[in-house]
Amino acid sequence: MPRQTTSITTNASHVTLINVFTVKPEDQDRLVKLLVEATDTVMSKIPGFVSANIHKSADGVRVANYAQWRSADDFQAMLKNPQAQKHMAPIAEFATYDAHLYSVVDVCNI
Amino acid sequence: MPRQTTSITTNASHVTLINVFTVKPEDQDRLVKLLVEATDTVMSKIPGFVSANIHKSADGVRVANYAQWRSADDFQAMLKNPQAQKHMAPIAEFATYDAHLYSVVDVCNI
Repeated sequence: MPRQTTSITTNASHVTLINVFTVKPEDQDRLVKLLVEATDTVMSKIPGFVSANIHKSADGVRVANYAQWRSADDFQAMLKNPQAQKHMAPIAEFATYDAHLYSVVDVCNI
Repeated sequence: MPRQTTSITTNASHVTLINVFTVKPEDQDRLVKLLVEATDTVMSKIPGFVSANIHKSADGVRVANYAQWRSADDFQAMLKNPQAQKHMAPIAEFATYDAHLYSVVDVCNI
C-alpha cells in the first residue's frame, strides 16, 4: 500500500478516529505489526477508508491509531465487516482499546 | 497564528503527544476555546513547539489534542514552563486528561 503523508486540516469532510490500545510492554511490537497488516490487507480496501497512522508510545504500553474515514457511517460499516472483525479479533485477545470519533476544530503550526 | 496543514509522516524527527481530555458535555466547547487560546498565546511560542491540532469528539465528552514537539525534552520543559502552567491550571479544574508521547511507525493512505 502507498505510504505517504497524512494531512490534518480543519476543512476536510472526513471523520477522525483516535483509537488508543493498551498492552503489556512485550506485546507492543506485536500489536503494531498486526495493525499494519490489518490496515494493508483489509482496512485500506474497505469503502470510506482515508488513512491509518500507527503510533507507538514512549512508555511501551500503548499503541494509537490516528485514522480517518470518509464518514461516521463508513466507520460503523467497517466495524460490522466480517473481514475487519476477523483481523481485529486476535488483537482483542491481548489488547484493550478505547476508540472514539472526532472532528478537527483547530490546527496551529509554527 | 498561522492555520495550515499538519503532516503525519514516519520520517519526521519530532515526537507526537496525544492528550485526550474528558469533560462534561456542557464543557466541551469551553475546553476547545481554552485550548485554542492557550495554543495561540503561549504554547506556540515555547521553544520546540511544532503543532497543536484540537479535536472534539462526536460523543461530546472528549477533546483530543494531537500535538507535535521537536523532542521529548522540549515537551517536558513546556510542562515546567510557568506560563504554560498558568494556562493549563484552569483547565485541570473541570477536565481530566490522559497524555502520552508517541512516535509514528506507519502511515497508510488511499
